[in-house]
Amino acid sequence: MWKEKPSSIAKKNPEMPIYYISVSKKNEKKLLESHSRCVNIEKFLKLDTAYKGLGVDRKAACLAIQDGIIVDAGSAITIDIMQSGIHLGGYILPGLSNYKRLFSSIDALRMDFNFDISLVSLPQNTRDAISFGCIRSIVLTIQNVAKDDCVYFTGGDGKFLSRFFDRSIYDNTLVFKGMLKVLQNNLKGLL
Amino acid sequence: MWKEKPSSIAKKNPEMPIYYISVSKKNEKKLLESHSRCVNIEKFLKLDTAYKGLGVDRKAACLAIQDGIIVDAGSAITIDIMQSGIHLGGYILPGLSNYKRLFSSIDALRMDFNFDISLVSLPQNTRDAISFGCIRSIVLTIQNVAKDDCVYFTGGDGKFLSRFFDRSIYDNTLVFKGMLKVLQNNLKGLL
Repeated sequence: MWKEKPSSIAKKNPEMPIYYISVSKKNEKKLLESHSRCVNIEKFLKLDTAYKGLGVDRKAACLAIQDGIIVDAGSAITIDIMQSGIHLGGYILPGLSNYKRLFSSIDALRMDFNFDISLVSLPQNTRDAISFGCIRSIVLTIQNVAKDDCVYFTGGDGKFLSRFFDRSIYDNTLVFKGMLKVLQNNLKGLL
Repeated sequence: MWKEKPSSIAKKNPEMPIYYISVSKKNEKKLLESHSRCVNIEKFLKLDTAYKGLGVDRKAACLAIQDGIIVDAGSAITIDIMQSGIHLGGYILPGLSNYKRLFSSIDALRMDFNFDISLVSLPQNTRDAISFGCIRSIVLTIQNVAKDDCVYFTGGDGKFLSRFFDRSIYDNTLVFKGMLKVLQNNLKGLL
């Protein structure tokens, strides 16, 4: 597994198909220009849910998990609840970097987070107060829906957040695992 | 009690002192220009606390309460814990309007909050998902420190938030009640 920037996608064997999903029209265009055999598998991602407008990346991550809470912590934090392969719903919080950016618009609160903050003792200064508020509010809402279920973290801040949970797994490949599952179940339709 | 805009402060009886606190140098200047007998009472606001850098408005609101949680919900939401007249600490969350502004920077999440959102059933669309996430994370962190204590709400969004709490009081004059208490205790020093 590896990462590539949309601005410099390496040439691949033109015979090999690239199965993909995308949440960015602009970057999808760049992928399609770089390779002749690209197959968008979005239509094969069938999630049992009543949720309207679930992003295709969230859908893929959910499909990787049968039971548990899926937290994708990027520029936004999405929290989705899966039970026996059914998506029960989900909700959205700002991402950690966006919380920080938000405070930076208020003079007295423009400072870096203290990521070593204790979530137990009450803060005694402004830097700890904003760090505690944001991190604790994120952690509490996740704990509140998770109860004793396992929490699967993915995304840039997933590793950091996972350490506040006893039953948690950090897996930055969750979206790809969901895609792989879909591919394996739809080989005939795709090949 | 009444409100005046800093840009159009009405003339008062010049003999009457105005006791004030301020968190804005700019607006303080405008007050001082409008009236000759202004007395800043900040130095009389003595709160028993280990917290460094507590804003004078938070200090005043805390001084109004002997026991309980003080939530000032404005452009930021400050949460302070008072016990037997002692300030145990506090923390800070973004204000509701700032949460909304934050999401507006992400294309797919640019929408108004649903303030009638249920905090019980899981959201099934994006608008409910961002509303639920923000409001629930705020409510849960306050409930988590409040436990069975009374929560005193003040500030623009205080009334809205107070309805999620069984033991809560909404009082938009908390800061002024704290100031009044300080004035009554320091009459000799001030007159």
